[in-house]
Amino acid sequence: MPLFMDTHRGMDGLTAEAAAGVHMKDVETQAKHGVKYLQYWFSEDEGVVHCLFEAPNKEAGVAVHKEAHGMMADEITEVKQGD
Amino acid sequence: MPLFMDTHRGMDGLTAEAAAGVHMKDVETQAKHGVKYLQYWFSEDEGVVHCLFEAPNKEAGVAVHKEAHGMMADEITEVKQGD
Repeated sequence: MPLFMDTHRGMDGLTAEAAAGVHMKDVETQAKHGVKYLQYWFSEDEGVVHCLFEAPNKEAGVAVHKEAHGMMADEITEVKQGD
Repeated sequence: MPLFMDTHRGMDGLTAEAAAGVHMKDVETQAKHGVKYLQYWFSEDEGVVHCLFEAPNKEAGVAVHKEAHGMMADEITEVKQGD
């Protein structure tokens, strides 16, 4: 399945707990859209989150965020993982 | 050790082979700066690379790219990995 990395910026006041809560909502919603969240990384200081996920297409990743919590990514890039 | 995600953009004409070659140069250079590259993801279509690495600080990550190949990241963010 295609692999994607998304980037969220400007999440002022982000905490580890908030990031985990939002991620959990994605995970609860993902199956309906054929998406599988694999990992995420975040910066509380910079208000940035990167999510790595598998999805049939970019739109499915958009749909999960929209339905789960409405916090949309600034960028979603289809990626390959380096060896 | 602190964890970082960097993002390179605008790498027009990027290929999997080129990304692997550049990554190899980082890996060959990393120990001198106390850095450990863990993984990278890339998009040939969008000319984007994300590198995940451990380093004592952001400057060490900058130093590796500078010495290894001179292709500097557009952003380097200290991150925590989500559970």
